[in-house]
Amino acid sequence: MTRWEPNARGRLQLAALELYSERGYDQVTVAEIARHAGLTERTYFRYFADKREVLFHGSSALQDLIVEGIAGGPDGLPPIDAVGAALESAVGVFPGRELAGRRQAIVKANPELLERELIKLATLASAIADALRGRGVPDHAASLAAEAGVAVFKVAFQRWVSGEADQSLALVIRQSIAELKIVTA
Amino acid sequence: MTRWEPNARGRLQLAALELYSERGYDQVTVAEIARHAGLTERTYFRYFADKREVLFHGSSALQDLIVEGIAGGPDGLPPIDAVGAALESAVGVFPGRELAGRRQAIVKANPELLERELIKLATLASAIADALRGRGVPDHAASLAAEAGVAVFKVAFQRWVSGEADQSLALVIRQSIAELKIVTA
Repeated sequence: MTRWEPNARGRLQLAALELYSERGYDQVTVAEIARHAGLTERTYFRYFADKREVLFHGSSALQDLIVEGIAGGPDGLPPIDAVGAALESAVGVFPGRELAGRRQAIVKANPELLERELIKLATLASAIADALRGRGVPDHAASLAAEAGVAVFKVAFQRWVSGEADQSLALVIRQSIAELKIVTA
Repeated sequence: MTRWEPNARGRLQLAALELYSERGYDQVTVAEIARHAGLTERTYFRYFADKREVLFHGSSALQDLIVEGIAGGPDGLPPIDAVGAALESAVGVFPGRELAGRRQAIVKANPELLERELIKLATLASAIADALRGRGVPDHAASLAAEAGVAVFKVAFQRWVSGEADQSLALVIRQSIAELKIVTA
C-alpha cells in the first residue's frame, strides 16, 4: 500500500540536515533519515538516489533557472550583468538562510561532498558560458564572464549564509557584482 | 643499493602522462609507470605517494609562487592586477604546452582527478584571498578578486593548452585579465 505523504521530500531534506549536522555525514544512514522524518526507506529512495543526493537536490533547477534567465534577459546587457541578473532570478530555489548555512557547513566538512559541490559549480559555469554564447557573446568573453559570475555567486552565497550582512541573497549578489566591478576596475 | 637516477621525477611524470594518455588513467599501474620510465616502483614511491599524485606535483609550488607574488607585489596595484601579475610570475612551474595539454585531457576525462583539480583551485583561491587581505584589501573584496583571478586562470590555461592562441601562458593570462575588465565593465 502506497500512502501519499505530505511534503515527503522536504521532510527528508530537513531530517537529513538535522542528523548530518548533529552526528556528521558519515555517521548517518538513509534508514535513520527516513525514520527521523517519519517515513520509510522506500519513500526516501523514491526521491533521492542515495544519502548524498538529498543535499544536492535543487542544483539542476538552479542551473536551469540561471540559463533561462540569461537566455531571456534584455538585449544589450553587458555579459556580467546578464549573469548577475540571472543569478538573482534563481535565488528562489534556496531554502532560508539558516538551512542553507547548515547545508553549507555539512558540505564543507566532508571532502567527498565538497568535491561534488565544486563539480556542480564547474558544470554551472559551463552552462552559463554556453548560454552567453547563445546570446552572441564571443567565446572567450563568455567563458570569462561565466567563471567570474560563478566566482561572485560563491562569494556572495558564503557571505549570505555567514549572516554578516543581514540581507537577502539577491541583494548580496547584486552588491557582489558591483564590488567585482570595483576590484577589477 | 640505492642508485641516483638522473631526473627520476621528470621521467616518471613523462612516463605517467604517456601511459595515461594511451590507455586511460584507470588502466595503468604504478609498476607500469616505473617500468616505462626505466625505474623501479620503489623509486616511484620515493617521489609520489600514489598514482594520482604524479599528476599534481607542482601545485603547491604554484600556490607558493602566486602567494609570494601577491605579498611582494608593488604597492597600490588594484587587487585584480596584483593577482594577475602573481599568476604571470608563476607560469614557470608548468611544463610546455603540449605536456600541459596532455595532462589537462587526462584530468578532464576522469571525475576523481577533476574533483582533485577543483579542490586544488578552491584552495588556491583561499590562499590568494588571504594574501590579498595581508596587503590590506578588505575581506569581501579580497575573496572576490581571488575567485575572479582563479576564474581567469582557469579560462586562460584552457585557452593556452587548446593552442588556439599561439602565445605564452603569461601573455594569455595578461590578455584574459584585460578581457575580464571588459566583460565586467
